[in-house]
This record gives sequence, C-alpha cells and structure tokens, in this order.
Amino acid sequence: MNVKSITYVLGWILKFEGAFLLLPVLISMIYREIQGWAFLFVAVLCATCGLLLTGRRPKNPAFYAKEGFVATALSWVVMSVFGCLPFILTGEIPNFIDALFETVSGFTTTGASILPAVEHLSHTALVWRSFTHWIGGMGVLVFLLAVLPMVGGTNMQLMKAESPGPSVSKLVPRVRYTAQILYRLYIVLTVLQFVLLLFGGMSPFEAMCTAFGTAGTGGFGIMNDSMVRYSPYIQWVTTIFMIIFGVNFNVYFLILMGKFRQAGRCEEMRWYLGIIAVASLLIFVNIYDAAVSAEANLRASVFQVASIITTTGFATVNFAQWPTFSRVILLILMFMGACAGSTGGGFKVSRFMIASKAMTKYLRSFLHPRAINKIRFEEKDVDDETLRSVLIYFFTLIAIYVISTLLVSLENNDLVTTISSTLATLSNVGPALGKAGPMSNFAAFSPFSKAVMIFDMLAGRLELFPLLMLLYPPLWKETVQEARRRKRRREALSGTRG
Amino acid sequence: MNVKSITYVLGWILKFEGAFLLLPVLISMIYREIQGWAFLFVAVLCATCGLLLTGRRPKNPAFYAKEGFVATALSWVVMSVFGCLPFILTGEIPNFIDALFETVSGFTTTGASILPAVEHLSHTALVWRSFTHWIGGMGVLVFLLAVLPMVGGTNMQLMKAESPGPSVSKLVPRVRYTAQILYRLYIVLTVLQFVLLLFGGMSPFEAMCTAFGTAGTGGFGIMNDSMVRYSPYIQWVTTIFMIIFGVNFNVYFLILMGKFRQAGRCEEMRWYLGIIAVASLLIFVNIYDAAVSAEANLRASVFQVASIITTTGFATVNFAQWPTFSRVILLILMFMGACAGSTGGGFKVSRFMIASKAMTKYLRSFLHPRAINKIRFEEKDVDDETLRSVLIYFFTLIAIYVISTLLVSLENNDLVTTISSTLATLSNVGPALGKAGPMSNFAAFSPFSKAVMIFDMLAGRLELFPLLMLLYPPLWKETVQEARRRKRRREALSGTRG
Repeated sequence: MNVKSITYVLGWILKFEGAFLLLPVLISMIYREIQGWAFLFVAVLCATCGLLLTGRRPKNPAFYAKEGFVATALSWVVMSVFGCLPFILTGEIPNFIDALFETVSGFTTTGASILPAVEHLSHTALVWRSFTHWIGGMGVLVFLLAVLPMVGGTNMQLMKAESPGPSVSKLVPRVRYTAQILYRLYIVLTVLQFVLLLFGGMSPFEAMCTAFGTAGTGGFGIMNDSMVRYSPYIQWVTTIFMIIFGVNFNVYFLILMGKFRQAGRCEEMRWYLGIIAVASLLIFVNIYDAAVSAEANLRASVFQVASIITTTGFATVNFAQWPTFSRVILLILMFMGACAGSTGGGFKVSRFMIASKAMTKYLRSFLHPRAINKIRFEEKDVDDETLRSVLIYFFTLIAIYVISTLLVSLENNDLVTTISSTLATLSNVGPALGKAGPMSNFAAFSPFSKAVMIFDMLAGRLELFPLLMLLYPPLWKETVQEARRRKRRREALSGTRG
Repeated sequence: MNVKSITYVLGWILKFEGAFLLLPVLISMIYREIQGWAFLFVAVLCATCGLLLTGRRPKNPAFYAKEGFVATALSWVVMSVFGCLPFILTGEIPNFIDALFETVSGFTTTGASILPAVEHLSHTALVWRSFTHWIGGMGVLVFLLAVLPMVGGTNMQLMKAESPGPSVSKLVPRVRYTAQILYRLYIVLTVLQFVLLLFGGMSPFEAMCTAFGTAGTGGFGIMNDSMVRYSPYIQWVTTIFMIIFGVNFNVYFLILMGKFRQAGRCEEMRWYLGIIAVASLLIFVNIYDAAVSAEANLRASVFQVASIITTTGFATVNFAQWPTFSRVILLILMFMGACAGSTGGGFKVSRFMIASKAMTKYLRSFLHPRAINKIRFEEKDVDDETLRSVLIYFFTLIAIYVISTLLVSLENNDLVTTISSTLATLSNVGPALGKAGPMSNFAAFSPFSKAVMIFDMLAGRLELFPLLMLLYPPLWKETVQEARRRKRRREALSGTRG
C-alpha cells in the first residue's frame, strides 16, 4: 500500500480543516465569545500537523482502489477527531465520546445530537456544528480535488470512494474540473437559500446555520425543537431546498449547460420526485388534523417527507407520535435516501431502481428463459458488474444495520427506539422514533451504543466499503508484509553497497 | 402456457386432498364427533372435482418454468380454499377469511392462529390443523411426484418450484425416486418423534398432533399456551426434533447411504448448528432467571431458538416479554430461517452464507482487483446465475416484507406488533411479538391485514416467485393471446377443411 500518498492526503485534509475552523473563530469575534480561542488553537494544531505531513510530495504515483478507500476512511476519522477537540476544550461537550459523536454526526450530515439543550451553546459552537454539515455534504475530498492538482491516479480513486451512488459519472473529462463545478453549484445554491431565508426575517446567523444544515442535508438545528417555531414561509423555503439538495447534481450541471430536456429526462430524479409526491399525499391523508388549516397539514407532510428522504432530519412536528402507517412510511424513506450524486444519504433512489428492475427482469426470465433483456437505467444498459455491486451493497447495508441494532439492543431500550436509532444513524438521517425522536436527542444512549452509531454514521456516509476496508484484516496483514519486504530489500541493498 | 397440464396437476392435488381429509374423518369416528361429516363431505367434493379434472391425460408434454410456477402456486391456493371449507361447515371458524387464514397458516407451516381458544376445538379439527402442517412441510407436489409417474418435463419444474433453497439438488438421477426417498425419511422421522413423545406420557392424539407440527416446522399447538405445560422431557424431545427437521434432508440421505463423513462436511448444516449454539448461549445469558434452575433457563433458550430459526413457532415461555436484545436475536432468526431442503421457511442459511461470501469477496476485489476468486459453497464454485438469484431473492423478500408491513400498518397497531407480525407470517414462523406474541393470536387483525398475511404466508412458503408469477400481468396477457391464436388457427383449419 502506498502509505506516503495516503498520509499526504491526510495532511492536506488537516490543513483544510485548519482553514475551515477559522469560520467559527470569526463568529466568536463578532459575538465576542471566549470559545473562539479553543477553535483558534485547534486550527493552528491542524495546520501544523498538516504541514508536517505534506512536507514532501510523494514520488510513487501508484494509487489504486484500496488506497482510495483507506485514504478516504482515514480522512473522515482524522477530520472528526480533530473537529471534536474544540467542543472538549471549551467544555461545551466535555466528554470525548459525546464530542466525537456530535462531530461525526455533523460531518456525515446525520444531524443526530447528544445535546439536550442546543440553545445553551455559544454561537461559535453552533456555527461549527452546522458548518461541519456543509463541509461533509459535498465531501472534503471532493473539495481537495477541486483546489489541488493531485498526483497520479489519486483523483478518480478519491472521488469514487467519497461520492455517493452506484457509479460515479464525471461531468467533464477531468476529475478536477468536475469537482470544481460541483462545489460552485453547491455554493451558489447555498447562498440562494441563505438570501431567501433572510427575506423570511431570519437573522444572518440563523439563516447561515439553516442553509448549511439544509445544503449538506444535515439537520442540526439551533433550537431544541428543530424548526417548529419558524414561519410557514421559512418552512416552505427549507422544504424546497431540502428537495433540491437531494437531487443528483448532474441535473444542475445539465441545466447550467442549457440541456434542459436531458436534465428533465433524468430517471432517478423523476422517481425521487414521484416518491416524495406519493409519500406526502399518503401521510397528508393519514395525519390530517381538522384543527389546523389544510395548508398546515400539507406543509407538515411535505416538510417531513422531504426532510427524511433527503436524510436531512429537520422537523416541524413531532413525527415520532404520528400514526403507525405514517411512521412506517418514514422508516422506508429513511432507508431509501436521496439521489446518487446529491448530498443526501441512505440506500439511494438509483440503487433502489436498479434492484427493482433486476427483480422484474428475474421474474420475466421464467416467462421467456431464452430472451436476453438487459436492465436499462438512465437510457443505458446496466452491466453485470454494477448490478452485482448494487445487490451486494443492499445486503451489506442490511447486514451492518442488523448487527448494529443487535449491539445497541444490549442496553435494553424499547424495540422501536432501538431499531429506529440505528437506521437513522446508518442512513445519516438523524432523528429517529421512540426515545430518539425529533423532539428528543441521543444523550441517553450508553457510550458503547454511541460508538456503534459513530461507526454507522461513517459507514453510511462513505457507502460502507471504505470503512469496512479499514477493518479488513488482510489489508493490514499485506501492508505489514510489504513494509517488511521493503525493509529487507533496503537492508540487502545497503549490504551490497557496503 | 400449457393450461391442460396445469389443470391436470390441480386435479391430482384435489384427489390427494380428498384422501388426506380421511384422517380427520377417522379421528371423528374414534372420538364420536359430529364434525366428521363436514370433513367427509369436503373429502368427497375434492375427490369429485379431482376426478373431473384428471379425466384425460394431457397430450402436450411442454412444461417449462412458468408452468411449474403457476401449477405450484395454484395448487397451494386451491388446496387451501378446499381445506378451509370443513372449518366453515362445522361452524368452528364460521368466517371465510379466518378459516382461510388458519388453513393457509397450516399448509404453509406458519402456525399463526386466529383462534383465541384452541382448546375448544373438536379433535377432528385439531388433527386437521396439525396434519396440514405435515402435508405442507415436505410439500404436496413432492408427494405427487413420489407416487405418480408424471408427464414430460413436469417433474423437475414442480420440484424446483416447491422445494426451498437456492438450488434443487436431486439425490438420485430420477426426480421420482428423490421424492420417494424424501417422503420416506420424513415419515420415519415423524414416527420416531411420535414414539418418543408417547414415552413422555403424551396421549397418542397429543403425540400425533405435536409430531405433525414439529415435522412440518409448523407450530400449531393443541393448547392455548402452546407447549408451556409439557414436561421438560417432552420439551427437549421437541427441541431436538425441531432442529432435526430444520436440516437439509440431503444430510439424512447421505447418512442413510453410509456416507457419514460427507454428511458431516455439509457446510450449511454446520453454520446452522453454529448459529443455534451461539444464539442460544446469548439468549441464555440475557434472560437468565435465578429463580428457576439453570436447566430451565437453558431449555427455554434452546427451545425458543430452535423453534424460531426452524420457523416452527412453538413456545414454552412468552418470549414477547424478553429483553430487547433477545427479541432482536429472535427477529434475526425469524428472518434467517432454516436450511435449504428442510421443511423450515425463511431466507435460508445457505442463501445467507452465499450472500455473506459475496460480500467478503467484493471487499477483497478492491484489494486485489485482478484476482479471480470464485465463491465456494459446499465445496463447489457458485456460478454467477446462482449468486445473482440469491441476491435478487434477498431484495425481493425485503421488498415484499416492507410493502406488506406498510399495508398492515394501516390499521394502526403499535409498531412492534406491525413489523413483527408480517415478518412472522412471511417467514412462516407463526407467533410474533407485541399483540401477536406466542401467548396471543392473530384474531384481532382486520380482514384486510389477514388477507395481506395470507399472501405473505404463501409467498414465504413458495419462495416468492411462483406466487409473484401468478400476479404478473404479462403472463396472463400472453396466455390470453395464445388462446386467441389457437382459436383462430382452429377456425382457419376447420375453414380449410370445410
């Protein structure tokens, strides 16, 4: 394994994190909050470590899938560990596992919080929580690719490992430009929402945090009851932007290129919007409350459906108390997730579509055993490799879900809390049902359960395999063997010379 | 589609059902119960319909996968509809949907009951309930193949459609002898359990019903509280036989042939026994109750694990009140199910193993992209076709599970009852958690939910695709088109002749 290239990537990630930490420092200066010093200290720490690791550019360009996986997984771990330090230093979240949970929840855009009283936090801490969503939403490695000319085959491997969906399609031939376009779109859309929220009477601080949380499909709020107290206008704006950020960004690129018809033909987007419409309608009928206006009923349904399918996790009502039918719909949407190539998590609509088509094709094959009917998706044939990886992904996702549920069930919470909290973290949604519902939080879980959920959040955001690779013994065995071999060769070489 | 061959098969199934119904008639004569007349009437009805349908042997031998699927699915539907008539006629289950639910639950070896008071039933009805388990366990079409020389390619297609597991392996080259061997093993093992239960002090009637319920991995009891009141000896005997009936019958055939070493090497059986051991141990520790003996604790754990993984569904304790950890284990085992080629339901251990190996291989492929490492199972390479069908099966199973849960959630039971009742019926387990727990029943569900669960039980027993085929519009469209074309050809032919 190309260890030097990996540490080089890690170094850059740390340098970026140092830069990102300057935003909360800036906010602390505006609000004259003492917490800013802790953030500044960590920023300097990150920059120093980063500089040490990026001192020499690696010469060996060999960078394959395994390096991509390991670099990505380690980047997210390192980023989270450094990112949680300010919370500990300021004492706002003194416990390490809690601080790490909150930070991982931020970067992975989950939005599950261990804080019972968010409103007691400093502005500095609040903006960092929300900013982690924004950074994690599009992906920090994609950011790195956008601003930095990388060595060798690094680019595509990193892009593949961090981007969500069954296959990565480059918008333009060069990975670097693709990454730049993605980030530009991301920034423009975020600013647009920010401005629209300002029009709704939000303070710039509130609007910024809300836009960060929406853009990354994160869901950390700055109030204990999420978005209950905001005006209908703000709730609708947020609904629309949640839906926007759940769409494959390729669509926006096509629109930008003037290819409107091609953008409109995107199969995944049409299913995604269809699912939102049907789910909203079903919930609307199921929860209809004559005590409030039809608009309020509709707003609650659409907001919650959009929030859950995009895995954002904002709430305007306590959906944990909805009828069973609506809660089952939400659980299905939690699992489903948004479009590939968006900032949302979950299984992804495109994977669901490919698997569904495979199912129908399989049934059809008994009717016409000799007919060759390829599955088509987005007007292209799906090759066997992609199909297999989608189906294996499905099995792996369920396997990880089941194992983590089993581990979390050890603390003997009620069954609904147990099965929904692991699903909500693995899918990067955030709020679950039962005791971990939207008007509650994850504080009461044991440190062990929190550790399991930290794993789930990372696994969900990185689409399982990069993180599983880190835990795969043969990888480390081979790496150690390689290192030994290299050492022996070096010794032999110096022996010959001597 | 070869309609005549299918109705011919259906006719034979009805004739057999008429013969099977003579067992309850016999019991009614022993206990001098008036209900026997209803069973006799239905027996005659079945025989008459059967004779009408099998009047002429079909000449066209074309019998492909689709015919196999349709014949199998329709056989089970027809069998269940006729099988529920006696319950309605005697007035013991006057409602049609309830009677059908109970009968489908019997034939599919689910064991979920809508009867709040089983003990009020006549001996005649009780024995028919348990006997349906025994008939459905090994499969009525397998029985048909064993006793009847069938036409053309019929044999293998029926065997494939009714037998559980990712692939059907014939024990001997001829399907007919394979079916005979399977039924002989089945009868010998059932009789063995019957005798051992008699030694435990059970009456012949009790022993017969319990042996039927165990052999078919069904779970209908003759007492309201299932097996709580039986002696430890009887509970242990039942435990061991549940485990025995969950093993792939190939193993017993190998033992019979003296190939002990080969039998012991069966990978699926070893995993199956391993899972039982681990799950029992975990539950034993989790539910340990110092108030009773260690033996009682162990007996409760092993009994329940065996009962659930084999999808039998007997209970010696009210496991719906166990701690969450143990209940989650039971839910996992419900889903997993027993070995392929056994009488148990669920996803099957072998499918789970193949999918798990595919997952590990997929991870490995990132480490060594160019290495070709085939998955091996039972000392053979798993071909791509089998792997894909296992993975698609998994997706389809979850899809049906999720859709039925959504439909059942409409009646707004609590979430635990909702999600566990559909799982317990789809996996043919029977008792679920919550309000549908082992000391309760399925009476309270709405007729709509019961209809959904009837579908689930049949889908689970027939391994999804035969039943889905029945609901697949292209099949019927083509069949109608074919019929029209045939009619036109006949008309044209008679026109030429005239």
